[in-house]
Amino acid sequence: MEKIAIVGATGQEGFGLALRWARAGESVIIGSRDPARARASASELKKMIPDAVVEGLANPDAVAQAKMVVLTVPLAAQIAALKSIRGRLQPGTVFIDATVPLEKALGGRLSRVIQLWDGSAAEQTARYVGKQVRVAGAFHCLSAEALRDLERPVDSDVLITGDSREARAAVSALVAKIPGARAVDLGPLDNSRYAEQLAALLITLNLRHRVPASGIRFTGLPDVKDG
Amino acid sequence: MEKIAIVGATGQEGFGLALRWARAGESVIIGSRDPARARASASELKKMIPDAVVEGLANPDAVAQAKMVVLTVPLAAQIAALKSIRGRLQPGTVFIDATVPLEKALGGRLSRVIQLWDGSAAEQTARYVGKQVRVAGAFHCLSAEALRDLERPVDSDVLITGDSREARAAVSALVAKIPGARAVDLGPLDNSRYAEQLAALLITLNLRHRVPASGIRFTGLPDVKDG
Repeated sequence: MEKIAIVGATGQEGFGLALRWARAGESVIIGSRDPARARASASELKKMIPDAVVEGLANPDAVAQAKMVVLTVPLAAQIAALKSIRGRLQPGTVFIDATVPLEKALGGRLSRVIQLWDGSAAEQTARYVGKQVRVAGAFHCLSAEALRDLERPVDSDVLITGDSREARAAVSALVAKIPGARAVDLGPLDNSRYAEQLAALLITLNLRHRVPASGIRFTGLPDVKDG
Repeated sequence: MEKIAIVGATGQEGFGLALRWARAGESVIIGSRDPARARASASELKKMIPDAVVEGLANPDAVAQAKMVVLTVPLAAQIAALKSIRGRLQPGTVFIDATVPLEKALGGRLSRVIQLWDGSAAEQTARYVGKQVRVAGAFHCLSAEALRDLERPVDSDVLITGDSREARAAVSALVAKIPGARAVDLGPLDNSRYAEQLAALLITLNLRHRVPASGIRFTGLPDVKDG
């Protein structure tokens, strides 16, 4: 079974994704800077889903074992995480960036984004990991709260970007493992800024309307699941 | 009855809004640079909705008669339109900007946005019209195609921004006149960039998925209609 390595999966968003994929029967590796924390999160997950196939590893060891990698660290930790793992990525890996460029990285607000040199956090990731892997953007708009509530399907579409059509299709298959999530193909990686901004918009709505987990549905699209 | 003046209502988006509000029994003024074109559009509307209360006027004359003004011109025409009307705006008017800062204004793509000095097209509008009126942002994400199809409710939320809570509530009441549209309060005017970007995202999805009118629904929000 293809393993999915989640870099930063001891955080809320990464752990939520790990839960959903483990529940769907996928083999998941929880990555963390600290291998002890990674193992602790894997144990926690195992308690919630006893038949989960999950292990906890330091981020570089996690990505070395997987051809599907998801990056779910905050912007402030993104570049350091990429530098720590890029030497261990397998060629051809589908590398999914879920980073939202929030002003919080600078001590500012959760509800505001900052403009990165590359145009988006996903393109920043592509610059750091190089051409050895196929970078995609996804999962920005799935709230960690909603992911963690295993009894309820999430109620949100997932925008997928990436310059490789094959990589986008692979991400779409991962989206389909999460009940209630629908993949929406958004095309090239440089469209990631739209998905990242939309995530910040949802955070703004959460704060403003005092809800834990707003989401997004696009209307008027053909019901395609794999773009 | 309060009149609604739509600046640029001979264009697709403005005409679509005029249609919906006229159908809802509102008194609508179709504004255009060219008064003859404004009158022609008003006649066209009247043919579609015989009991419509509608007239066509040059933009400055249109805004002079209304306390609700909606700006629906393309970005390339926005500043010129504002300069032409600002001397005729009534103090206290709610001024709704629906401009999306598309690269098309520079001869580029429909699917790309440009970064304006003020942060958003709505804030740019606020700079040009000054403090005499209360500026709001709204209607970016309602497709002209969907608005024009009077037999079907639109299927999209409408994000509303503005620094005046009263103005946002007034816009929300206008949204409620359009079947299928739901108002979602997005707070201060400087959040307009999110709504404008989202509109460009929807255009991108229209082009990519070859659909005429994608829309947006937010999930997980309390069902408030007036923020």
